[in-house]
Amino acid sequence: MLFKMPVYNAPDFTKPELASAPDCRLEAADMDGVAPEYYHSTSMFPEYFKVNGEWKLAEESRMDSSVVLRPDGRLDVVENRNIKKGDLVVLGRSEDGHEGIYVHSKGFMEDETELDDQFVFRQGRSRETSYARDYDRLFELLEYEKKHGFITWVMGPAFAFDHDARACMQALVENGYVDALLAGNALATHDLEGAMLNTALGQDIYTQKSMPNGHYNHLDVDNRVRRSGSIPQFIEDYDIDNGIIYSCVKNDVPIVLTGSIRDDGPIPEVIGDVYQGQDKMRSVIRKTTTVICLATMLHTIATGNMTPSFRVLEDGTVRPVFLYTVDADEFVVNKLLDRGSLAATTIVTNVQDFIAIIANGLKLDWKQYSKQK
Amino acid sequence: MLFKMPVYNAPDFTKPELASAPDCRLEAADMDGVAPEYYHSTSMFPEYFKVNGEWKLAEESRMDSSVVLRPDGRLDVVENRNIKKGDLVVLGRSEDGHEGIYVHSKGFMEDETELDDQFVFRQGRSRETSYARDYDRLFELLEYEKKHGFITWVMGPAFAFDHDARACMQALVENGYVDALLAGNALATHDLEGAMLNTALGQDIYTQKSMPNGHYNHLDVDNRVRRSGSIPQFIEDYDIDNGIIYSCVKNDVPIVLTGSIRDDGPIPEVIGDVYQGQDKMRSVIRKTTTVICLATMLHTIATGNMTPSFRVLEDGTVRPVFLYTVDADEFVVNKLLDRGSLAATTIVTNVQDFIAIIANGLKLDWKQYSKQK
Amino acid sequence: MLFKMPVYNAPDFTKPELASAPDCRLEAADMDGVAPEYYHSTSMFPEYFKVNGEWKLAEESRMDSSVVLRPDGRLDVVENRNIKKGDLVVLGRSEDGHEGIYVHSKGFMEDETELDDQFVFRQGRSRETSYARDYDRLFELLEYEKKHGFITWVMGPAFAFDHDARACMQALVENGYVDALLAGNALATHDLEGAMLNTALGQDIYTQKSMPNGHYNHLDVDNRVRRSGSIPQFIEDYDIDNGIIYSCVKNDVPIVLTGSIRDDGPIPEVIGDVYQGQDKMRSVIRKTTTVICLATMLHTIATGNMTPSFRVLEDGTVRPVFLYTVDADEFVVNKLLDRGSLAATTIVTNVQDFIAIIANGLKLDWKQYSKQK
Amino acid sequence: MLFKMPVYNAPDFTKPELASAPDCRLEAADMDGVAPEYYHSTSMFPEYFKVNGEWKLAEESRMDSSVVLRPDGRLDVVENRNIKKGDLVVLGRSEDGHEGIYVHSKGFMEDETELDDQFVFRQGRSRETSYARDYDRLFELLEYEKKHGFITWVMGPAFAFDHDARACMQALVENGYVDALLAGNALATHDLEGAMLNTALGQDIYTQKSMPNGHYNHLDVDNRVRRSGSIPQFIEDYDIDNGIIYSCVKNDVPIVLTGSIRDDGPIPEVIGDVYQGQDKMRSVIRKTTTVICLATMLHTIATGNMTPSFRVLEDGTVRPVFLYTVDADEFVVNKLLDRGSLAATTIVTNVQDFIAIIANGLKLDWKQYSKQK
Repeated sequence: MLFKMPVYNAPDFTKPELASAPDCRLEAADMDGVAPEYYHSTSMFPEYFKVNGEWKLAEESRMDSSVVLRPDGRLDVVENRNIKKGDLVVLGRSEDGHEGIYVHSKGFMEDETELDDQFVFRQGRSRETSYARDYDRLFELLEYEKKHGFITWVMGPAFAFDHDARACMQALVENGYVDALLAGNALATHDLEGAMLNTALGQDIYTQKSMPNGHYNHLDVDNRVRRSGSIPQFIEDYDIDNGIIYSCVKNDVPIVLTGSIRDDGPIPEVIGDVYQGQDKMRSVIRKTTTVICLATMLHTIATGNMTPSFRVLEDGTVRPVFLYTVDADEFVVNKLLDRGSLAATTIVTNVQDFIAIIANGLKLDWKQYSKQK
Repeated sequence: MLFKMPVYNAPDFTKPELASAPDCRLEAADMDGVAPEYYHSTSMFPEYFKVNGEWKLAEESRMDSSVVLRPDGRLDVVENRNIKKGDLVVLGRSEDGHEGIYVHSKGFMEDETELDDQFVFRQGRSRETSYARDYDRLFELLEYEKKHGFITWVMGPAFAFDHDARACMQALVENGYVDALLAGNALATHDLEGAMLNTALGQDIYTQKSMPNGHYNHLDVDNRVRRSGSIPQFIEDYDIDNGIIYSCVKNDVPIVLTGSIRDDGPIPEVIGDVYQGQDKMRSVIRKTTTVICLATMLHTIATGNMTPSFRVLEDGTVRPVFLYTVDADEFVVNKLLDRGSLAATTIVTNVQDFIAIIANGLKLDWKQYSKQK
Repeated sequence: MLFKMPVYNAPDFTKPELASAPDCRLEAADMDGVAPEYYHSTSMFPEYFKVNGEWKLAEESRMDSSVVLRPDGRLDVVENRNIKKGDLVVLGRSEDGHEGIYVHSKGFMEDETELDDQFVFRQGRSRETSYARDYDRLFELLEYEKKHGFITWVMGPAFAFDHDARACMQALVENGYVDALLAGNALATHDLEGAMLNTALGQDIYTQKSMPNGHYNHLDVDNRVRRSGSIPQFIEDYDIDNGIIYSCVKNDVPIVLTGSIRDDGPIPEVIGDVYQGQDKMRSVIRKTTTVICLATMLHTIATGNMTPSFRVLEDGTVRPVFLYTVDADEFVVNKLLDRGSLAATTIVTNVQDFIAIIANGLKLDWKQYSKQK
Repeated sequence: MLFKMPVYNAPDFTKPELASAPDCRLEAADMDGVAPEYYHSTSMFPEYFKVNGEWKLAEESRMDSSVVLRPDGRLDVVENRNIKKGDLVVLGRSEDGHEGIYVHSKGFMEDETELDDQFVFRQGRSRETSYARDYDRLFELLEYEKKHGFITWVMGPAFAFDHDARACMQALVENGYVDALLAGNALATHDLEGAMLNTALGQDIYTQKSMPNGHYNHLDVDNRVRRSGSIPQFIEDYDIDNGIIYSCVKNDVPIVLTGSIRDDGPIPEVIGDVYQGQDKMRSVIRKTTTVICLATMLHTIATGNMTPSFRVLEDGTVRPVFLYTVDADEFVVNKLLDRGSLAATTIVTNVQDFIAIIANGLKLDWKQYSKQK
């Protein structure tokens, strides 16, 4: 048993410096979308604010956002662009309590051993790092989260290029390891192209052969989904029976597709406004307990920015959110670390092999989803 | 003299197979945003369509789009999402004329020597390629385009991280080598952060020292520009007097900022809807004769997709559009080639050094824009 | 069945241009280690030379070497440094027969389909290429070669850093899929460090924990192997019972270790003179029918240079030599292609995952070699 | 003035824990090439050993080696393979004095500010780091070292591929900024190929055109240098008048060429035995005060391993040794840091641009060395 859920130790608010700390300062926003000067900006950690003499946790947090005290006493973590005139915004830029703000960055570390074992902030991982234990632990984590948590997968466009990777991912969806999928137009288009035409960007996803006029394939798929009006309708109209998107639709796994300026199409479900897209992504992340980001710098960083290190469960328990980021390029996986954004486990490899190892490790019969008979 | 403008050789439409070719087929779109089946999709090359027995060039082209015959006889190259019900869309998927469609991919090649010298489709360039002649030719090209053309720069977020790179780029703007700037929220924010606070993401852009609480710097800049309501107003409100964005504003160089899901902020000028953003970018690209993309996979591919290989000048002359893409990573610069999207010159290097070499090669006194006295 | 041994089609020497071709020219070397001017330099393909009116194949070939006619009529392919004064060296720099030299680069291609299926010179493979069929074919190839061929593995230093990768590779050795191992001092040292101390460069190969004073580990292993006088003696002296090197020694798999200037140690088996090292490597490659290079630019290029595209079996049959190169970096895998050195299958991934997928694909029980109980 | 020579602060040996420390333990080696168990292994820092009650500095140090007390009282830092039977080897694996060994890792740091300014161990540098100040300081450092120090350049094979880079480097040699050159067979061969035939691996180093049969070019150059018997003789025999190697020979700059298993040739000066090669490299490094490594992982790590952080000048002054490593790949430049080997300044860029910026920054007229008139 490598995976053991870390226990959260709430701050000791009886400590004199916290007990005697003042209430946090508040200032009403004087216009929409703009925070008052000296606003406090959140981290990914649990943060407590003293309000009317009581320390309160901002429960649904994310990085780089303001904290708004609602009339009902709730503390909302709000992106500055979503602030409304009149919102009461917390001021203060320290973390130790003396401004009524306490950032609790070590809540999950019981002692040195646990620190080392469970929550080490790993830096500088490379293709030469040993990943054996990370894989073993991830197998256990996925089993745990399947029963108790919410697993969100964030996928780059390239993921659907490989026949086996696609089958392995489908197996994960079919077996309940996928609670939500965040991606862009390209992942959806390529996967549906694979489902309909067995190609990605016109190249056979198994034999690698380029089809004649194959560059039309993804354009045609985009165009047909637009004609159908939605992905589910397209699946019905064209008898699609395989793939990642197909399985998500079949199993009611929510898909959030957000647009980017490099999109063709897009297919109808794609959210063209990136800030509305962020809001939709965050609505999924608010429920998420494990995030796995595969081969997408854009979506990985976007997701990382809005993923806190903790989740408050319905019974009030505080547990960690686990984040994995997998990419063939050290630069990409280390980018999050450079930004200080997350306590992430980073793995440097080709995501196609990663997902095969995951599917094998979970003992899934992914070959049944193979199109190659 | 390394740079000589290639001469365009129009197709010989007296050739029997072209002279006897049928008119291209047309079909009216039956709904908004969807092309009829078997629509023709454009390449980056000049494409001619036979209409009423005459071959006509689609003048303002781009890749992966449909061709619409307007009532006035003009051929419009239209992204499928922008098609309106009733638009007459060209059908056909061949390039040799027999469907009334002729793709002229070799218009700028007079003979083998020119092919080799001027328009070679370079593949597999790496950090070990010799770039000396590319630099020498680019110096001459920039001088030419300053007088006769329209130079659009496409810049990634990292560009403003380095003090010298920023000063060199400012020198290029001030000296008339920049006709338009395409970028994202991050480039603008970081550059304005450098202008106001001498940092990027809180790190001094010259000494590399991390400022205390420096992660607030870009958030504060974003928030203040939002308060000011626009970049020009922010420049006035806060007496900004240096940087890339500052110089563009001062010199009336148009800036198109498009959003992405990883944005903080954004600042007011950023276009949140990526498809509106694409349209705005393309409106700039329609005028462009040379594009230089620096360290941004997202914006480079987006721009590459919408940049044709040619431009029709006011006097009807057809000339090439030159595209350069510069990145530290072979994967990024070769990505465009993989997509078959562009006849691009790719250079593998750190863009900070690239811009210093350009500024030195153009003999610009960029040190005057240095903040480091 | 994806793997089918390609059939070799010898050149048709009755064709007039070959039948009437002159004998190849020969010139005696006038000093040791230097070829006469205008010497012919070999490719990786089968090359035929007309001698006394007969076309003869140079059977044991390699790239970039001279061809020496021995008194017994044999054609030896000899690195220039190994030429002796008086050796009769073939002159000529053409490939079509008119100088008595015929390079047969298409001997294994029956028709277009086979070309496409079996021997395609793949270029520009990246992390986004589909590798599913390559894996499936490689599983079959390894089964075939285990029975009929000779599989040489070329391994970089990093391979022993991961606990599972090491166990998978050991399983491959124990199950007969490894006929020879080419590597450097570091691979051997790190693997023996793992065997003795469960670390690589002082870091636990499973838990990733850094051991106190762990940087001594590999130095101590080096020093102790030197004291023992040989790897087998060290294995005996210190009761080593696991790992890649251990299994090779136990199963009499030949290991060729060649030195580099970045070595510590070295352990006694390492060949310090790199040109003697090349000769020893080539003596293995002369027997090899499949080569698999893992995460080492140095050894991969060295091996690639000396690996021909074909092997003449004892019964005279000519068959292809298959070469795979696996690395996390496109630059490394594509480097061979840039040099035009080999018809190689390149896979971009972390070699740790590659070997796990191979071991799983071959249905090996590699967990039994795990040190992690 | 960015560059100021840091002042060395020797340890305070009057401190009780150092004053009362025991002599270090010594044990005679019982066989050649093997250290006694529990030998002390050196770091790159100044290390002091208590011998007969006195603390003595091991003056010419390097990493990962043993310390031998010579009969004359001198402390020699000796690679284990160079230990002779009977050598008195220091034992001990601590750094704080209690075993008579004191590692002085902070000798050049006066206070926090200096630490920050001058000797910061930089980690995780990437293509997005600001390098402006590093360049400015390096210009000043090179001017200083030209007068007072010894600058060793370590160059990878690719460096000679670019026409301008070659001319810039030649300018540095001609102007006295190069005191020694460490490289491999390929750099020398390619540079001489450029000098004789204007190509590198058969491709024109300015126009990038591939010459017919150009793959013979480097083989011919190798073969001819071997015929001439030495580089200087080759330069005379073939009237070579340009390039890096030419300028080094002309200006009596020592060149150490070490072999690797991927070499063709080699040319006569190349040292085939890598351990003899290491010894020769170290003989140069013993004099060196600044090392600049360009685009070679192999030679960079080899050099890094044998480069201490300090040099004892003839007058007894202890000064730092500065090490720069420049590569297009973060993985390569960060590799040294992972190994903990050096306090290095790393720059992520294409070395061709790096050297152009250096030549421009030093105001050298490198165009005069251009072959492109």
